[in-house]
Amino acid sequence: MHKLFYPDSIAIIGLSSKSSNIPRITLENLLRWGYRGRLFGVNPRSDDLHVDGIRMFREIEDLPEVPDLAYCLIPAKFVPDMVRRCGEFGIKRMAIPSGGFSEFSEEGERLARMTLENAREHGVRFVGPNGVTVANTDNGLCLPFVPLLKAPKGEMSIISQSGGVSLMMLNFLLDEQVGLAKFASIGNKLDLDEVDFLRYFGEDPQTGLICLYLESMPRGRDFIDAVREVNKPVVVYKANTTSAGKKAAMSHTAAVSNDEDIIDAAFEDAGVIRIHNFLDFIEVAKAFQLPPMKGRRIMVMSPAGGFSVITADLCEKAGFAFADMGSDFYESLQQFSNAGVIKFSNPLDMGDIYDPKLTTHVIYSVMHSDEVDGAMFVSQRPQMPQGEDVFHKMFLSDLSKETWGTILSSGKPLGVCLFGPARMIQQTKKSVEFPIFNSPEEMVYAMSVQMNYYARKMKPREEEERPSGINLDAARKWMSGRSGDFGEEILDLLSLFQVPVVWSRVASDVREAQSYAEEAGYPVVMKVVSPDALHKTDAGGVFVGVSTEAEVAETFETIRGNLEKYRPGARFDGVRVQRMAPEGYDMFVGGKNDPSFGPVILFGLGGIYVEVFRDVANSLCPAAASTISERLARLKSFAVLKGMRGKPAGDVPAFVDLAVRVSHLLAAFPQIKELDINPVRVLPKGMGVVALDARARIAGA
Amino acid sequence: MHKLFYPDSIAIIGLSSKSSNIPRITLENLLRWGYRGRLFGVNPRSDDLHVDGIRMFREIEDLPEVPDLAYCLIPAKFVPDMVRRCGEFGIKRMAIPSGGFSEFSEEGERLARMTLENAREHGVRFVGPNGVTVANTDNGLCLPFVPLLKAPKGEMSIISQSGGVSLMMLNFLLDEQVGLAKFASIGNKLDLDEVDFLRYFGEDPQTGLICLYLESMPRGRDFIDAVREVNKPVVVYKANTTSAGKKAAMSHTAAVSNDEDIIDAAFEDAGVIRIHNFLDFIEVAKAFQLPPMKGRRIMVMSPAGGFSVITADLCEKAGFAFADMGSDFYESLQQFSNAGVIKFSNPLDMGDIYDPKLTTHVIYSVMHSDEVDGAMFVSQRPQMPQGEDVFHKMFLSDLSKETWGTILSSGKPLGVCLFGPARMIQQTKKSVEFPIFNSPEEMVYAMSVQMNYYARKMKPREEEERPSGINLDAARKWMSGRSGDFGEEILDLLSLFQVPVVWSRVASDVREAQSYAEEAGYPVVMKVVSPDALHKTDAGGVFVGVSTEAEVAETFETIRGNLEKYRPGARFDGVRVQRMAPEGYDMFVGGKNDPSFGPVILFGLGGIYVEVFRDVANSLCPAAASTISERLARLKSFAVLKGMRGKPAGDVPAFVDLAVRVSHLLAAFPQIKELDINPVRVLPKGMGVVALDARARIAGA
Repeated sequence: MHKLFYPDSIAIIGLSSKSSNIPRITLENLLRWGYRGRLFGVNPRSDDLHVDGIRMFREIEDLPEVPDLAYCLIPAKFVPDMVRRCGEFGIKRMAIPSGGFSEFSEEGERLARMTLENAREHGVRFVGPNGVTVANTDNGLCLPFVPLLKAPKGEMSIISQSGGVSLMMLNFLLDEQVGLAKFASIGNKLDLDEVDFLRYFGEDPQTGLICLYLESMPRGRDFIDAVREVNKPVVVYKANTTSAGKKAAMSHTAAVSNDEDIIDAAFEDAGVIRIHNFLDFIEVAKAFQLPPMKGRRIMVMSPAGGFSVITADLCEKAGFAFADMGSDFYESLQQFSNAGVIKFSNPLDMGDIYDPKLTTHVIYSVMHSDEVDGAMFVSQRPQMPQGEDVFHKMFLSDLSKETWGTILSSGKPLGVCLFGPARMIQQTKKSVEFPIFNSPEEMVYAMSVQMNYYARKMKPREEEERPSGINLDAARKWMSGRSGDFGEEILDLLSLFQVPVVWSRVASDVREAQSYAEEAGYPVVMKVVSPDALHKTDAGGVFVGVSTEAEVAETFETIRGNLEKYRPGARFDGVRVQRMAPEGYDMFVGGKNDPSFGPVILFGLGGIYVEVFRDVANSLCPAAASTISERLARLKSFAVLKGMRGKPAGDVPAFVDLAVRVSHLLAAFPQIKELDINPVRVLPKGMGVVALDARARIAGA
Repeated sequence: MHKLFYPDSIAIIGLSSKSSNIPRITLENLLRWGYRGRLFGVNPRSDDLHVDGIRMFREIEDLPEVPDLAYCLIPAKFVPDMVRRCGEFGIKRMAIPSGGFSEFSEEGERLARMTLENAREHGVRFVGPNGVTVANTDNGLCLPFVPLLKAPKGEMSIISQSGGVSLMMLNFLLDEQVGLAKFASIGNKLDLDEVDFLRYFGEDPQTGLICLYLESMPRGRDFIDAVREVNKPVVVYKANTTSAGKKAAMSHTAAVSNDEDIIDAAFEDAGVIRIHNFLDFIEVAKAFQLPPMKGRRIMVMSPAGGFSVITADLCEKAGFAFADMGSDFYESLQQFSNAGVIKFSNPLDMGDIYDPKLTTHVIYSVMHSDEVDGAMFVSQRPQMPQGEDVFHKMFLSDLSKETWGTILSSGKPLGVCLFGPARMIQQTKKSVEFPIFNSPEEMVYAMSVQMNYYARKMKPREEEERPSGINLDAARKWMSGRSGDFGEEILDLLSLFQVPVVWSRVASDVREAQSYAEEAGYPVVMKVVSPDALHKTDAGGVFVGVSTEAEVAETFETIRGNLEKYRPGARFDGVRVQRMAPEGYDMFVGGKNDPSFGPVILFGLGGIYVEVFRDVANSLCPAAASTISERLARLKSFAVLKGMRGKPAGDVPAFVDLAVRVSHLLAAFPQIKELDINPVRVLPKGMGVVALDARARIAGA
């Protein structure tokens, strides 16, 4: 991978001097960006001696040496063979921007398969097809085929599944206070994909922050694992979240999208910053140029009282706490007040402080207060008629040195948002070292992202340790040979993971049923056992509160009769006699094996809460107890579980333990495609939980 | 009001030639903006003969004529007297920007009262204090005291509760494709407020769209009434949303209600456009410069495939439908395709159409298709190195004439979002007639606002007609003299509005109770009647399913005994014997008299749904049946009412009728401060509804 970004030599296949030649634009980008490796041009159908001074060769095999990288922009149908030839010639890396593959047609799909096969066979790794491939400000490598001005050098590296989007991102950088380290437009990511580039940028000393535009995440689990190893902020805009977006994405980069809830949970697990407004990628990058916010206490300041209100609203919603500077502090500010007509507090309306020197003094005092972890300042640089009045001083004085000094000296973040005509703001951005945010909304969001990122980093990650008492060997034995849909016997599997399940026995005749009922203690539940009646209630196969020996006998026969009526000839495997569980809250715990993110556990309060309110939490498996606890507590229906209207609270720790165990079960046996433990009866505090019923679908080994 | 914006003469009180003089900035704004009325300067402590050529007078009484308007920027403590003197001199209008009033201190509060009293006494109307007052591009009136370049003339009028915010809005207009009609910074709005200015701008021929920044809405109901009369888009940014204090409320209903929810519902009632990102005020104004979107079918286009994905996601979430142009259309586009490697659909990835002429042809075809109500186009104007290649043509060709022509010719809206360096985008904005949006997020939002505005306008508004059978006279009689907290007797009041209430009678002894039970039909419900036991369950005063004559006797005595135990010496007014209602869904209907918006009705599924999920709808009273129906259907718990898991659907029309009747009750009797009908039992479809219990707080007449 390293030589893909740092090749000592590049062959440009398809180059010619014709004015419509696209590879030539790539060549000129390389020349313009200051790339200093050796360059070769290749084109069998060109009579050019050279193009822009670069010597041309007819065939790749004619080159005087094996280049580190072949850039190959030729029609899709010629790509597979060219990959083979490059591989045979000894080339190990290729950049393939050509379109017309899987995203386009079945024929393209076939070409993609052949390209990949040929590459694998000859040990060629490549980026693309259907993307603008890579760039690197460290050595002037610039392979996109659209004319590009040299990007400002900086710490942001970009990975994008859309060439157009990635090029727009580059355009923005020209205009903003964020510079580029490395760039990868991965297109159909047929070989190298976002996970590969993420790992590489994670190790890259030039990269300080990684931004991704993704339309699909087929290797979700690997992505999450990679993020966990990367000690840098990872910012993702994941598009293709609606059916319309999916349609566009299919034709665009042949994307298959994932369940958005699972993505959100997985991103949270790994600390990925998911943005939902495209331009936030720049604002978030700006926030990370400031010192870390080490607590939640913010001070909001503005010479426009209304903007302190707006920004304070935004801060409260974003989870900031308001610093309390104390009445002494606020009173001490009155000496700076011009007309003495504004009462100071947090948010701080600075509309009455006309002298810019005093403004800088106030900002200094705020930032150096022990009561403050960070601050935000919203002001304007208006376009004004000529003049020498106080407002010119107030709004147009250059306070940038004092501001930057205060940030450096306090070691805390100061978010500055300046409104004004684009011309004035551009000028300011070019001339100051600290970031200028574009709106209060974007600033508050970006600062909250930064705050939460560092808060998460300071909290040691809880390991997903396997809880005690799990009999993995027995579970493996239980699983072996089993595939298909299973009902209540899944409770046996759960109990091998020390999940409390309701006591039950399967009786094959009335006598046996009566003896089990005796053992369980009356009253009991009785349920049909039959592979032909997975939905037992529908088959008239569930009876609760069976209270006497005689009733047991009667119920046994009724169940058998109902089954025969439900499905004549159905196999009758007996009747399950089950202990009645005490009153409590009925939760559900489910699981699935996501094709991208692997085993995922889902849970919530059962019944209506799931169906009507989609009040469901999920986590990757295995899950740490702290993760389960946090997400459980975030459910709206958690209020019910805590005990409402005089009802006792449920045994939350016992439920969390159960969920953790189930998550380990799912992690240990990915062949469990779906799992549904429903209900899990949560008993009052201290009394535990008990799984009452379960179903699962298990894939063949 | 008219002369406030069109004064023929203005006195500027406090003017002097000193460099620190703030009123002089106002004067210079007037001169700079081209105001042509007569101007006078007034200052008792100045020896100036003139300031900027404007003749000075010592006292207001010295003026040679009574000016149409007095502009008065002097310390707060002098304001009340100056208002009196201006009034006595015959001045009818004032603009008072001074701060230091109610917003600052108790002394300021007193000054505010005196100012208002003096104004009322002398028939003076004023804007302010504590705002930058008014401006008008139609005649060059510009009273803000901050140096301002002349604002571009246009259709937007601004009303702002913050001077700073309003000035920033003006600054934005300098840079955007939106011009100003009139401007009012209303500050503390002690006399003229947002409702007054809204009504005036509603009639103003220069104003096409009204934007408001508000921090409080003490006259919510008047505001809504005014908006209903204004046939122009009204856009509101309401800040100060998180610090609203909640008053202690007697009933459950009042506690779950929320000021912001009421504002949202009231805005929806009147068609107010509420924005939540400050800069959307500009983007929404841009959308209204385009022809109206007359349906929901949108076509999304971009040369960057990724941005068609992003924009399509946004469009689906915003409620657009995707136009289906048919396969013939998409196939016809292949002739324009450069490399033939992109499959066309909606969203339309135009990344393979390199020739700008073909781009305009595609846009023309899309916009003129009968399958399309509007379109969006996301592209870029990048900064590029010099060159003549296809990408220069693709991105930098001027397509503005063709684009504007297509919009005019089709009469449909085409949203255009261009990304690029500020310099390029500014240049484009200045040179084209159609709006350029700043981001896909803002464009999709603004276009959806425009679409929904016209959709609402085309739908005739349902009148809130009073349902038949309401006995208003009897209800007035019932109300007369009643004040305080009331329990179940509220059901009697409800029945006068033809609200179905459960049959019940109050029995004062056992014999009577037995005879009522006979009449009701067994089993019955029995409840304590006592002013000392409003919470009847707590007093052990509610028994359901009382099934025999003997049980009635026994229960009667138990209830009496429980009451005495609950509160010794409590007054016992008998026992209510109530018919048992059939099974159904328990909803609640509540009401409150909001200090700003007046009577408001709230409703939802009872119990857990309200408490845990805040799944509550509300509407101003009286409410039309269509409003109640729509908001009921929007509740998540509506799925329950429609019948889930084999349960029968509830009688929705009967519930809607009940809610409409209650809304008329609340509207007719604003002295009902809080009302709580809980539960309202909704019976299965066609079987009606019945109110089972109710409470209310009634204010003294």
